[in-house]
Amino acid sequence: MKNNITQETTSLDKTKPVQLAPGLEIGGDTIISMVGPCSVESFEQTHEIGRVVSSLGIRVLRGGAFKPRTSPFAFQGLGEEGLHILSAVAKEFGLLVVTEAMSVEQIPLVSEYSDIIQIGSRNMQHFPLLWAAGEADRPVLLKRGFMSTVEEWLMAAEHIAQKGNEKIILCERGIRGFDPSTRNVLDTASIALAKKLSPFPVIADPSHATGRADLVLPAARAAVAAGADGLLLEVHPTPSKALSDADQALSLDSLEEFTQQVGLVARALSRELV
Amino acid sequence: MKNNITQETTSLDKTKPVQLAPGLEIGGDTIISMVGPCSVESFEQTHEIGRVVSSLGIRVLRGGAFKPRTSPFAFQGLGEEGLHILSAVAKEFGLLVVTEAMSVEQIPLVSEYSDIIQIGSRNMQHFPLLWAAGEADRPVLLKRGFMSTVEEWLMAAEHIAQKGNEKIILCERGIRGFDPSTRNVLDTASIALAKKLSPFPVIADPSHATGRADLVLPAARAAVAAGADGLLLEVHPTPSKALSDADQALSLDSLEEFTQQVGLVARALSRELV
Amino acid sequence: MKNNITQETTSLDKTKPVQLAPGLEIGGDTIISMVGPCSVESFEQTHEIGRVVSSLGIRVLRGGAFKPRTSPFAFQGLGEEGLHILSAVAKEFGLLVVTEAMSVEQIPLVSEYSDIIQIGSRNMQHFPLLWAAGEADRPVLLKRGFMSTVEEWLMAAEHIAQKGNEKIILCERGIRGFDPSTRNVLDTASIALAKKLSPFPVIADPSHATGRADLVLPAARAAVAAGADGLLLEVHPTPSKALSDADQALSLDSLEEFTQQVGLVARALSRELV
Amino acid sequence: MKNNITQETTSLDKTKPVQLAPGLEIGGDTIISMVGPCSVESFEQTHEIGRVVSSLGIRVLRGGAFKPRTSPFAFQGLGEEGLHILSAVAKEFGLLVVTEAMSVEQIPLVSEYSDIIQIGSRNMQHFPLLWAAGEADRPVLLKRGFMSTVEEWLMAAEHIAQKGNEKIILCERGIRGFDPSTRNVLDTASIALAKKLSPFPVIADPSHATGRADLVLPAARAAVAAGADGLLLEVHPTPSKALSDADQALSLDSLEEFTQQVGLVARALSRELV
Repeated sequence: MKNNITQETTSLDKTKPVQLAPGLEIGGDTIISMVGPCSVESFEQTHEIGRVVSSLGIRVLRGGAFKPRTSPFAFQGLGEEGLHILSAVAKEFGLLVVTEAMSVEQIPLVSEYSDIIQIGSRNMQHFPLLWAAGEADRPVLLKRGFMSTVEEWLMAAEHIAQKGNEKIILCERGIRGFDPSTRNVLDTASIALAKKLSPFPVIADPSHATGRADLVLPAARAAVAAGADGLLLEVHPTPSKALSDADQALSLDSLEEFTQQVGLVARALSRELV
Repeated sequence: MKNNITQETTSLDKTKPVQLAPGLEIGGDTIISMVGPCSVESFEQTHEIGRVVSSLGIRVLRGGAFKPRTSPFAFQGLGEEGLHILSAVAKEFGLLVVTEAMSVEQIPLVSEYSDIIQIGSRNMQHFPLLWAAGEADRPVLLKRGFMSTVEEWLMAAEHIAQKGNEKIILCERGIRGFDPSTRNVLDTASIALAKKLSPFPVIADPSHATGRADLVLPAARAAVAAGADGLLLEVHPTPSKALSDADQALSLDSLEEFTQQVGLVARALSRELV
Repeated sequence: MKNNITQETTSLDKTKPVQLAPGLEIGGDTIISMVGPCSVESFEQTHEIGRVVSSLGIRVLRGGAFKPRTSPFAFQGLGEEGLHILSAVAKEFGLLVVTEAMSVEQIPLVSEYSDIIQIGSRNMQHFPLLWAAGEADRPVLLKRGFMSTVEEWLMAAEHIAQKGNEKIILCERGIRGFDPSTRNVLDTASIALAKKLSPFPVIADPSHATGRADLVLPAARAAVAAGADGLLLEVHPTPSKALSDADQALSLDSLEEFTQQVGLVARALSRELV
Repeated sequence: MKNNITQETTSLDKTKPVQLAPGLEIGGDTIISMVGPCSVESFEQTHEIGRVVSSLGIRVLRGGAFKPRTSPFAFQGLGEEGLHILSAVAKEFGLLVVTEAMSVEQIPLVSEYSDIIQIGSRNMQHFPLLWAAGEADRPVLLKRGFMSTVEEWLMAAEHIAQKGNEKIILCERGIRGFDPSTRNVLDTASIALAKKLSPFPVIADPSHATGRADLVLPAARAAVAAGADGLLLEVHPTPSKALSDADQALSLDSLEEFTQQVGLVARALSRELV
């Protein structure tokens, strides 16, 4: 078995880009935004987001259909209907889709509707799911467990790669800390470290990392400055009415200003944000 | 939907015992030890452990057949063969078996061989697995995620209970901390808190919590003193040769002394350790 | 320079008792309770506590005169007047006093009124204070920093011991964690570990560790079961009216029952709680 | 008493600049680097650093004379001789000095030699030291406790401000986490949050935050992108021979490239790094 992870490298960045679609790769000069609602709530909500997102040149639509929720009494997502909506909106606006598969059985279904299979933070060490993703023919977005070390995260990626799928995108989404003022702690240095130790592109999720809409911009700029190859962002037409994660969603109105601000940092590093 | 968790109680302990076998329940006056190897390595190893364990009056044999390992390059367990061995040894010595199901698909197989279905720390929020365990007709041992709050742990139990299975045993196995001198931090107060907020029996795993054989005894005594209804313990005929978790396994030779020492604390609380 | 800390020992407990007064030592068969208010608020409050405490056979009165408070807008303690009160009450009831010195300059003053000098958690690595305590002729109660490893804690004790004062009592008071359901996490295994690695008696502060009066009893029992040589406890005649730490103070009425319950565990380990 | 901290603001950045010297302020358009050795080891070492630092246009020299060290057996700094060296080198090259005062008694001495008084992470809640700094006539650099919340950090600043000194510079230097791959976790979002909630400039210490020379550059870029008003950096002529913190010191040779790289991010935010 080949091991993708090295303990010693001289270059900070040895990333091998992953192709997302013809002409679109992640891990190279282009920083990829993946933008959308936490949960797909309705066709109208998703369509409105898709329209704005595509008008800004963003190429990837994110959204949750199956929602892993701490409480069984909370909204659990629209399920397959959510996948239909995501896929229809993406088709209309020429977007790619990334959405989460929560279990082994959902991998075929998610693969049918989605261009990228997301594995969530709570499932980072659910090994059967990693193995199933390793047999899929889609790029896999592997979120870091909020309680996992960088080494455990890279080892989880190895569980996928060992099954033959090396189209892996790592995503730092904040680790659990002791300070209630933010939802999690964005571990910016881990982005650089993961890029140093592995060949996989690394993106950041400043929405979950901070849990506060007012901190998403500085966190996103920091992630890009640390070398992130992409951003996963939550937006909502009316954040205060979101069925999940209302506090951290950016409004659609603020998205253009947001991408311009982050784009300035990207260009300072000779990269382009789309 | 009924909610088992209360935020307000007057009594510290409102535990509703769970029946494990005719005449054997957990959550009452008897504190239940569940003892065995981290991994089932061979029939000989498991048989030797079963013999000693049963000779001490212990009633439950634990052991891992499917091992969720951080690294894909580490020993992953004997799989179904491990279940055969566990079951055969348990039958010979009149023991019950507890072993982990790592995925939804393994639930029927594990149910066939095991009296209690264990859900591991890494899977505490793998909701499809919780739902499947909620439909099984076996008691479920739910380990606390090593970076989960007590509320998240109890909510995970609710995901099981909502499917109809309320035979749930909670297990505190140490949370992740900042001090490398122990593998995890045994959160003793969480044992009392979980018993206060839920009706489920709570046990402790001092082996994983400390990761050090020399601290398992004081940690086990502390857990019992805090109100634990049982203990999950790793033993090995030759700890230094264990294929996994070698540092934390008690030797079989020390087990009798161990149970006597912990038994003294149990009796101080008018309970009996078996 | 001699180093008190060993990395390797065979015995779990190599504690060398510290004499507190003629006929009273800590670290031997007797487990020492140190009981009193978080803050000395008035003569009446302290006198009432002293009366009850001494009637139960408890020998050490604790209480804060100088209160290190996170916010400069919170009650900062009575200062020297508080020391007067503590000392007068202790004299009347034949108790010893333990109270905190917050700075180098307070060491002489605190030494005058108090039998044991406490160094607080926030000051565990304030080295000038450790050095000054190392030159005092009083036993020093060194609280573990709520963010310190066991090694850092023992090294802080070494900073004291290097100045000549080896009458050191270590106190585990809970470490900072991620779960808001308790104020801190009582690290029970650290009590056993500190006793294994150093010659100093180790006590526990279940009041600060849990921050909840309803969890103080199970936490105290756990600490004693893990080998603690003493307990630091907050009580108040009317907990709901306490000027600081109201949520965690035991009522005076519950103290007798409390000491009986903990005493049962102590006796199971062939020790006596006073 | 006036409270500088607000819980509600609309603007992310309400920083009120602090004047360091005539014509040099922190918290405005200029991002201030404070560069030097962890410990002042000798005149030669410090002089060499001062020469390179000033040649790059950097205006502030940092260096430790009194070193708070976890172990009493480790190098404790040159003491007052170190202050002499720092001051002499700074004078020769027209630099300002920032160095740590470890105790109340050192405040006058440090004020004599240093332009900025640093309060270390371990002392963030040593209130008598905060009060003494609040009476000094020098700007105070207040490091965040490595396990302190943002609110506790801002409250510590209030302890200083209440004594009359509002020339406070906050410094995020990494918080303690569970992953041993970096020394601490740079909490980038806390930089933005502290700037949002208080009027004080906020800088970052990527050297201590990461503990790894190879991650200092991405961490520094991230901090600046998140809005940091300055950087505290450790350099050494021969990092491998440093008497303290050898793993995290940048070499003098790499400093020019480093400042250019970070400067690109600063300019993207319309700021200038000196």
